[in-house]
Amino acid sequence: MRVEAKLEELGLTLPEAPKLPPGVELSFAWVRVYQDRAYVAGHAAQNPDGSIAEPLGKVGVDLTPEQGYEAARLSALSVLSSLKRELGDLDRVTAWLMVYGLVNADPDFTLTTNVINGFSDLILEVYGPETGMHARMAPGLATLPLGVPVTISAEVAISG
Amino acid sequence: MRVEAKLEELGLTLPEAPKLPPGVELSFAWVRVYQDRAYVAGHAAQNPDGSIAEPLGKVGVDLTPEQGYEAARLSALSVLSSLKRELGDLDRVTAWLMVYGLVNADPDFTLTTNVINGFSDLILEVYGPETGMHARMAPGLATLPLGVPVTISAEVAISG
Amino acid sequence: MRVEAKLEELGLTLPEAPKLPPGVELSFAWVRVYQDRAYVAGHAAQNPDGSIAEPLGKVGVDLTPEQGYEAARLSALSVLSSLKRELGDLDRVTAWLMVYGLVNADPDFTLTTNVINGFSDLILEVYGPETGMHARMAPGLATLPLGVPVTISAEVAISG
Repeated sequence: MRVEAKLEELGLTLPEAPKLPPGVELSFAWVRVYQDRAYVAGHAAQNPDGSIAEPLGKVGVDLTPEQGYEAARLSALSVLSSLKRELGDLDRVTAWLMVYGLVNADPDFTLTTNVINGFSDLILEVYGPETGMHARMAPGLATLPLGVPVTISAEVAISG
Repeated sequence: MRVEAKLEELGLTLPEAPKLPPGVELSFAWVRVYQDRAYVAGHAAQNPDGSIAEPLGKVGVDLTPEQGYEAARLSALSVLSSLKRELGDLDRVTAWLMVYGLVNADPDFTLTTNVINGFSDLILEVYGPETGMHARMAPGLATLPLGVPVTISAEVAISG
Repeated sequence: MRVEAKLEELGLTLPEAPKLPPGVELSFAWVRVYQDRAYVAGHAAQNPDGSIAEPLGKVGVDLTPEQGYEAARLSALSVLSSLKRELGDLDRVTAWLMVYGLVNADPDFTLTTNVINGFSDLILEVYGPETGMHARMAPGLATLPLGVPVTISAEVAISG
C-alpha cells in the first residue's frame, strides 16, 4: 500500500464514488479492467462526498489557469479513487501509459499544457517517475460534461 | 452469431460501408486489427446505403439532445457494420474497452454524457454488460469531420 | 534502417527534440514505452531546431486547409523524431494502431479529415500500408497547447 501511504503523507484524501446530479444517467464503467490493462473513463474534480466540485466553466474565462491546475489535480484524486474501488490496491498499477487530459477552454486560451500538469504532477509525486510517467494529450474542448473545467481519462497497466 | 441475432431481434439493420462525399479522401482504416485488439476509427451516423445521415451540425443549436442521442445510436450501427466487415463475426468482440464519444457541440451545451449514451445503451443491449461494458469519454468538440454531430472511436478486445 | 532510408530518399529530415517557450513546463513523456507498445504524446509541427513551427492558430481562420495539411505532415516528422530518440531504430515500429489527430479549428470548418491526411499520407509513404495503416480520429478542437494548429498522438506496436 505504498501509494496510499504516500497520499496520506501528502495529506490527500480520496473522494467518495461520483454522485451525479438528477437527469444525468451513466451507461459506462468508471474503470474497465481487462487482463493487464485498466481503462479509465473521463473523471472530473469532486468534493469529498463525491459531488462535482466547483468552480464549473471554461478555463480562460470562468477559471484562471491556476484554478484549472487545481481542477486537474483534484481530477487525479477522483481517478485514484475509482482505481482503488476497482483494483483494491493502488499499487497494482504498474505503469501509467496514456493520459487524455481535456480542458474546457476558451478558444483563445493556449496554456492547456500547464493546466493538465495538475494531474501529471500529482501522479508523478505519488507513483514516482518510473511507474508514473505517461504520454499525454492536453487539448482545449468546446465543452465538457456538466460544464466541468477538466476531465481526465487514461490507460494504465496493472498486475494480476 | 449471437450479436447479429440480437440486432435482428431488435429490428436493427447495419448500414453499408461508408460512402463519402466528393473531395473527402481517406488515408486510414475504419478498423485496424492487431493481435487481440481492434482499433476503431471515428464513425458517424449513416443512412442504410452508407451515406452520411442528416441532420448535420452542433448539438444544442442544430440538433436537440434527443437527436444527438439518435445520432450516437446510429453511430453504433456504423461501428458494428465496420467491425463485421473486418472480423467476419461480431461475436469475436470479447470485450469493449475504451470508447471515445465526441459530440459536435455548442460551447454552452453540457449534456454530452446523455448524447453518447445513445451509443453505450445500444452496445450494452446487444452485447450484454459483461462484454459490452466500457470506459468512455464524452467531450464536446468545436467541430467534427463533415459537420457530423457525433463520432465514435473505440478499442475492443477480440478473439482469434 | 529501412524507414530512415525512405525518409532520406524523400528528402525529409527529422527535427531536433522539442524546444518549448519559457513558462511551459512538461510533466509527461513524449513517448511512453511499455512492453510491446509505445504511446506517443501530442506532437506539433516543429522547425528543424526543435522550436514550434509557425503559422499558429486555427485552421479555417488563421490557416488554410493546405497549411493545416502541411502542419499535420510536419507533426508526423516530430512524432518520428521522438520515436527514433526513444526506440533507437524506427523499424522497431511493427504496426501503427490508433492515431489521435486533433485540429485547432474554427467551429464552421468541417474538412478536418483532409487536414489530418497530412500525417497519415506521410506515415503510409514511409512505412507502407501493412505496417503504416491505422485507425484514426480527426476532430476539431476549440484550442490546442500554445495555439498550434495540429497535434498528433498515437499508439503503436513495437518489437523488442
